Amino acid sequence: MQFKTILKNPAEWMLSSGPHGEIVISSRVRLARNLRDISFPGWAVEEDRMEILNRVKPAVENLTEMNGAFSSDLSNLTAVKKQILVERHLISREQAAKAAGSAAIMNRKQTLCVMVNEEDHLRMQSIKAGLSLSDAYKMIDEVDTKLESTLDYAFDNQYGYLTACPTNLGTGMRASAMLHLPGLVLSEQINKVINAVNKIGLAVRGLYGEGTEALGNLFQVSNQHTLGEQENEIIARLEKVIRQIIEHEENAREKLYNEKQTILDDKIGRSYAILRYGHIISTKEALDLLSMLRAGVDLGYFSEDIRALIDVLFMEIQPAHLQVFADRKLGAEERDSLRAEIMRDRLKSLPEPSKFSSNKSNEQSSE
Amino acid sequence: MQFKTILKNPAEWMLSSGPHGEIVISSRVRLARNLRDISFPGWAVEEDRMEILNRVKPAVENLTEMNGAFSSDLSNLTAVKKQILVERHLISREQAAKAAGSAAIMNRKQTLCVMVNEEDHLRMQSIKAGLSLSDAYKMIDEVDTKLESTLDYAFDNQYGYLTACPTNLGTGMRASAMLHLPGLVLSEQINKVINAVNKIGLAVRGLYGEGTEALGNLFQVSNQHTLGEQENEIIARLEKVIRQIIEHEENAREKLYNEKQTILDDKIGRSYAILRYGHIISTKEALDLLSMLRAGVDLGYFSEDIRALIDVLFMEIQPAHLQVFADRKLGAEERDSLRAEIMRDRLKSLPEPSKFSSNKSNEQSSE
Repeated sequence: MQFKTILKNPAEWMLSSGPHGEIVISSRVRLARNLRDISFPGWAVEEDRMEILNRVKPAVENLTEMNGAFSSDLSNLTAVKKQILVERHLISREQAAKAAGSAAIMNRKQTLCVMVNEEDHLRMQSIKAGLSLSDAYKMIDEVDTKLESTLDYAFDNQYGYLTACPTNLGTGMRASAMLHLPGLVLSEQINKVINAVNKIGLAVRGLYGEGTEALGNLFQVSNQHTLGEQENEIIARLEKVIRQIIEHEENAREKLYNEKQTILDDKIGRSYAILRYGHIISTKEALDLLSMLRAGVDLGYFSEDIRALIDVLFMEIQPAHLQVFADRKLGAEERDSLRAEIMRDRLKSLPEPSKFSSNKSNEQSSE
Repeated sequence: MQFKTILKNPAEWMLSSGPHGEIVISSRVRLARNLRDISFPGWAVEEDRMEILNRVKPAVENLTEMNGAFSSDLSNLTAVKKQILVERHLISREQAAKAAGSAAIMNRKQTLCVMVNEEDHLRMQSIKAGLSLSDAYKMIDEVDTKLESTLDYAFDNQYGYLTACPTNLGTGMRASAMLHLPGLVLSEQINKVINAVNKIGLAVRGLYGEGTEALGNLFQVSNQHTLGEQENEIIARLEKVIRQIIEHEENAREKLYNEKQTILDDKIGRSYAILRYGHIISTKEALDLLSMLRAGVDLGYFSEDIRALIDVLFMEIQPAHLQVFADRKLGAEERDSLRAEIMRDRLKSLPEPSKFSSNKSNEQSSE
């Protein structure tokens, strides 16, 4: 598979809607693994890093899951192409900055990706649409089991899998879900929810992981602890909390719909309007506008048909995607203008929001 | 004429476009006069004020110019009705607050209005569309001359007409033009222009006169000095400065159109969009949106047909007009919602802005 195939095709999880797809965009499980008897990447010299790459890359490429995969040493990719992989949540921002010996191998559907020589020797992840943490875990666990039969993992009987950072020790697993929470943001309950989630040992982060801002009302919820619990237990606990957040979000939306409909009409109407008629739109504003459009689909202002288009636009309006689209480097002003142009074009035949298609909310109320 | 006739009909100057109508909304000339041998209003007791009213009101009502006029003691009008007259620039905010003895008499076209017992015994004004200061002066001068033949004005051979505040002494005249200056605001040259105008002894004020904010990119430019110059001289000097401001505004628009068209496309597109699809709009935002729509007409984004509609909306979306429309007192939230509803309704068949109808700008460039 070539890079342009990735470019042309959004990931499978983006095009489909999974369980609780109105609120949960995607579920992701990442495992950190290291080889025994060779320095961890932070300590490894270039020779070590190449040795790791030479051992890991063929093992990953040989997996049946990676049949027809895209596989590349990151040193062979331009900055923009690496940024594309970041914007697709396939590699981390940290990985994109890494030098010799770093590589990424991903399957055709972009649901599986293995990074080599990121913070650990191997960082492997799976992404599924909707609230599908167990399925995502199952998918990456199979990959991990196969790799374990050919690679000699650093494993300790007391501590479990050894990792570069102690916060990953044990299972080496980080499970997370990307939640779309416009209801909790609009009704100003989001901070209360984040604080409560933090208190029980889970993390809430922005669109691009640790230290990033929550744009477009999108929040990643993940486990903090990796040690002392089985993978299934961690996932079950995380999923339980996410189900509670979903319930809070549904209640917030219902309350807004029933008691503050004018505010929703206004926010959704303005977002539709600016997406249709704006000519200069920043990434941050675009994500907020698309977020309200998605909420509009959930609440019956727009047809369900456009949900996948919105989810794809969330990705396509990112800076690197725009530059690949334009086939040249773009300054910030040019990006803001092209971003607006693409959205106007994609949404030009979208009928105006109709406040009368309120069946959706009635369904919710009667649940 | 009854109050409801005023309500139903916008003023003549609002429905027509005068000289330089793209930039000059209206021209206004106001004269301050007082009767001899009776206390000025600020000093007058109620008995004096009633005496003034009894002398002045019939004299004004008898003018042929006031044939079929609306004439009312302000104590007979509700707060909302008085506010309507303020929003139409027919009486001052100060006059609206005045008690016994205050009255206002205005002609059918709402181009002439005489206030009784405002800061002076008589405050009479004329309003014309566009840059028409001489015509406006001529109109009010005729009224003044006729009144002077029946009323005994306080006049001093050295100082001219005597007034309550010394800043009005002499001619008692304040001539002003309402300018729409989005080009100078968008290109951030407006403060430079205001400072220059202030330095040569003219005043620049907001939409509702002294101490009010410049909303909707609307600015009133008027003479500060009333003493030591003939009325014609004051008006000629003011008009000369206004012509210079017009030139600056035209240059600013041309430069924006030629060099920053995307910014114009964005501002005008967004304003159109929010007016068409917003559901909660404050007075301030509405004035800014309508301002950009008017600029859109000037620059050929919209047809000339809607100019009068925009100018009428500038008035109709004001708080008192909304409450008369709703026929009840409205809270701020209800007003913001009704304001958006009225604008959506009035503009629902307005075609979307077209950046290709750029003849307008070419015309300007070749001037």
